[in-house]
Amino acid sequence: MYQTMADPLITLTTDFGAADAYVAAMKGVILAINPAARLLDLSHEIPPQDTLHAAMILLGAVPYFPPGALHIVVVDPGVGTERALLYAECGAQRLLLPDNGVLSLLEKKLPVGRAIQLQDSRFWRPDVSRTFHGRDILAPVAGHLSLGLKPALLGPVASTWHRLTLPEPRIFHDRVEGEVMHVDRFGNLITTIRAGHVHQRRLGELEICGQRLPFVETYAAAGPGQAVALLSSEGFVEVAIRQGNAAARLGAGRGTAVTVHVA
Amino acid sequence: MYQTMADPLITLTTDFGAADAYVAAMKGVILAINPAARLLDLSHEIPPQDTLHAAMILLGAVPYFPPGALHIVVVDPGVGTERALLYAECGAQRLLLPDNGVLSLLEKKLPVGRAIQLQDSRFWRPDVSRTFHGRDILAPVAGHLSLGLKPALLGPVASTWHRLTLPEPRIFHDRVEGEVMHVDRFGNLITTIRAGHVHQRRLGELEICGQRLPFVETYAAAGPGQAVALLSSEGFVEVAIRQGNAAARLGAGRGTAVTVHVA
Amino acid sequence: MYQTMADPLITLTTDFGAADAYVAAMKGVILAINPAARLLDLSHEIPPQDTLHAAMILLGAVPYFPPGALHIVVVDPGVGTERALLYAECGAQRLLLPDNGVLSLLEKKLPVGRAIQLQDSRFWRPDVSRTFHGRDILAPVAGHLSLGLKPALLGPVASTWHRLTLPEPRIFHDRVEGEVMHVDRFGNLITTIRAGHVHQRRLGELEICGQRLPFVETYAAAGPGQAVALLSSEGFVEVAIRQGNAAARLGAGRGTAVTVHVA
Repeated sequence: MYQTMADPLITLTTDFGAADAYVAAMKGVILAINPAARLLDLSHEIPPQDTLHAAMILLGAVPYFPPGALHIVVVDPGVGTERALLYAECGAQRLLLPDNGVLSLLEKKLPVGRAIQLQDSRFWRPDVSRTFHGRDILAPVAGHLSLGLKPALLGPVASTWHRLTLPEPRIFHDRVEGEVMHVDRFGNLITTIRAGHVHQRRLGELEICGQRLPFVETYAAAGPGQAVALLSSEGFVEVAIRQGNAAARLGAGRGTAVTVHVA
Repeated sequence: MYQTMADPLITLTTDFGAADAYVAAMKGVILAINPAARLLDLSHEIPPQDTLHAAMILLGAVPYFPPGALHIVVVDPGVGTERALLYAECGAQRLLLPDNGVLSLLEKKLPVGRAIQLQDSRFWRPDVSRTFHGRDILAPVAGHLSLGLKPALLGPVASTWHRLTLPEPRIFHDRVEGEVMHVDRFGNLITTIRAGHVHQRRLGELEICGQRLPFVETYAAAGPGQAVALLSSEGFVEVAIRQGNAAARLGAGRGTAVTVHVA
Repeated sequence: MYQTMADPLITLTTDFGAADAYVAAMKGVILAINPAARLLDLSHEIPPQDTLHAAMILLGAVPYFPPGALHIVVVDPGVGTERALLYAECGAQRLLLPDNGVLSLLEKKLPVGRAIQLQDSRFWRPDVSRTFHGRDILAPVAGHLSLGLKPALLGPVASTWHRLTLPEPRIFHDRVEGEVMHVDRFGNLITTIRAGHVHQRRLGELEICGQRLPFVETYAAAGPGQAVALLSSEGFVEVAIRQGNAAARLGAGRGTAVTVHVA
């Protein structure tokens, strides 16, 4: 039932915040099953039930991990409904998560090779609450997987899974129209437009909130306080203000329309 | 002086927040004594000096850990007074903490088997500050315990310790009256009323802020935006709004009166 | 190229916050190079691009760590400019950081023994972005150092480095004039005045915001709600209110003038 090779690295990504016991309880459950598990916090500050924000974090973090790392994701507005819980392999990464679309961005970069529905309750806590499957199902399953449990034993193969309805940029001959998808801590605006959408064409200006911004290669190319557009470290078109907060200054947020003019 | 079996797992729970050096200094002190210690953050976002909040986190997290785990708690409004510092064994869990009542909820679930006052300064930092016993006493003691130091060497047995004055629910033939004890990140209201308080009787409605709410089994049984009552994953009566914030919507917070009608 | 002795302990200090993928990506990059690396969060809640705040955290945390620990610091307003990235040895501690002054306080306590500019791109990620050197340069270099890479291979020796212009207290025969340098989570005001500045003289009163406060030895010596001055656990003159928030109550913040009267 258990393989000889086991990877003890387990990361946690939740919307639980840091002021309650929820994350800590999950850590305890994992370590009670595998005291050698190595736990790593990715983020617990996802806004409550914000699956798109979770999807952005997984895209920006998971691909960098060593093969075999196991990532637990608990952003779970559907806890207590019939939504499935999944084990998924994306490239060489492994994830445990509710089937609610949080994989939508990551799977474009690391396609899902195998997905399994968590159904075998032998690997769960004995008394599964109706409100906290992170602690009672995902954490113990992670503990067992980190001991080498074969994923096939978790349940039946899942042939399909939920995807978020992501706003797709509209591509015209002279422009690409998209929107702001994420605002980071610095107030930088990450948009839905990626390098691939402007393939072969020259980046002109970016239009947002009635302003037209130049494209630069690095924050430092902008004057202090100047709003500029650039390609983010993940390949998204991004709006930033050097040593300032673009979201606050432009009055922009998730959903704000963005146009990239190309030539 | 040191036992052969040592457990290197040490968790930290404080009200220090994440923006200062206080937690980091404690981690450094522990690792300087035992470089093999495995450190785990439970929470550092306890509101400043809020011992009840700390007690809730310990209750919700500590019981899930493997036997022998060592938990440092630094919520210490009395630092610099004559309040004692304690080593306590609760079930198979071990804790280091100021004697200010933060064990009050946990010890109802995991009774204290042994408590010891920290008095032997051989296991402290040489220069103990008057304002930071977490770094200068609790952290080094944790380091030594994780190396296998016998707890009996820390100081004399403590035969009694401080307890928080917790508001006890009042039980009537047709109702249980309690109050809100904790508000979590989602705005869920955890009350002082537990499943045991309504033993053998049927849950009717919950009354709070002039509203009467139905009991449901899971968040998902409520319509979006509907306020409901349910049993939390820890066995407390809880008020929640599906995909919403009950505290904000009801205008409730710690201390708000709650009545559970039973039949 | 690699030494036989390697220390796998790596700490992270950034202004990235906890809600984005940036810290997580760095952790992944390190672990992909050295799966045995032991990662520890110091703080990710440094206000964006606040190098002085970062300098305070390093001073308050780094000296407590065991020899050989490696500390990555990413507070990097100059990313994309010609500012250098450095490897620095402070006492027995090792740091990786942008050359922007974040060492200014630490190096007064632990002088820099050796500093090296990171220039050899063999130890970087293949595609270095223009906006995220934490992930693309500092993290992989940390991974290699934790495997035992000899620091001399990272690049040329740096003979000088940037220092913050810190406001120096002015010392008079009857007083020391300084200012508030840092406000901690509790609202305690840490000033630029240190024990050494009042050497041999008796602490009288502290003047701030038109109030004169007595010096006490510990928070507990103050009445609840009373503003007092004391020496912080790091040796700085500090203003605190027992069980209260001095910054809010006095209306003080970084830069507020402070006078310590001495006799």
